[in-house]
Amino acid sequence: MKNFRAAIQIQLRNNILDVQGKTVENALHSLSFSNVSDVHIGKYVELTVAAADKQQALSHVEDACRKLIANPIMEDFHIELTEV
Amino acid sequence: MKNFRAAIQIQLRNNILDVQGKTVENALHSLSFSNVSDVHIGKYVELTVAAADKQQALSHVEDACRKLIANPIMEDFHIELTEV
Repeated sequence: MKNFRAAIQIQLRNNILDVQGKTVENALHSLSFSNVSDVHIGKYVELTVAAADKQQALSHVEDACRKLIANPIMEDFHIELTEV
Repeated sequence: MKNFRAAIQIQLRNNILDVQGKTVENALHSLSFSNVSDVHIGKYVELTVAAADKQQALSHVEDACRKLIANPIMEDFHIELTEV
């Protein structure tokens, strides 16, 4: 068994209004960061997974994302794996 | 002026207890993902920043992270910039 560290970026799907992102964008503008736009806020998850190979590790992490970590109806996720 | 897309990963500092991560780890174990450990949950922010060059864009985004986006007392942040 090898250990892999997974970095998972989770974001709302493109067509869903990102209220939190819009609020942070407005707050940045009031703090005179007027050059900032298109702010999107999501989740960032790191975890260690034990698996026989990278392919199996990826399939476990995708399964965990679909079942618990992300909300597959509203969110997209992107997984990066590195062997540790 | 060029536009840069910043991807910001924000995580609790190492010595701070990640209660949300621990809760997700326990939930994954009950869903029979027993091969998963060391779960850490943070925030993922994407934004577009207009700046003269990459160095200036990075300094703007770091400033925005310190002043609003991250909590510099409890969190570390990592910024990646790509020109768009």
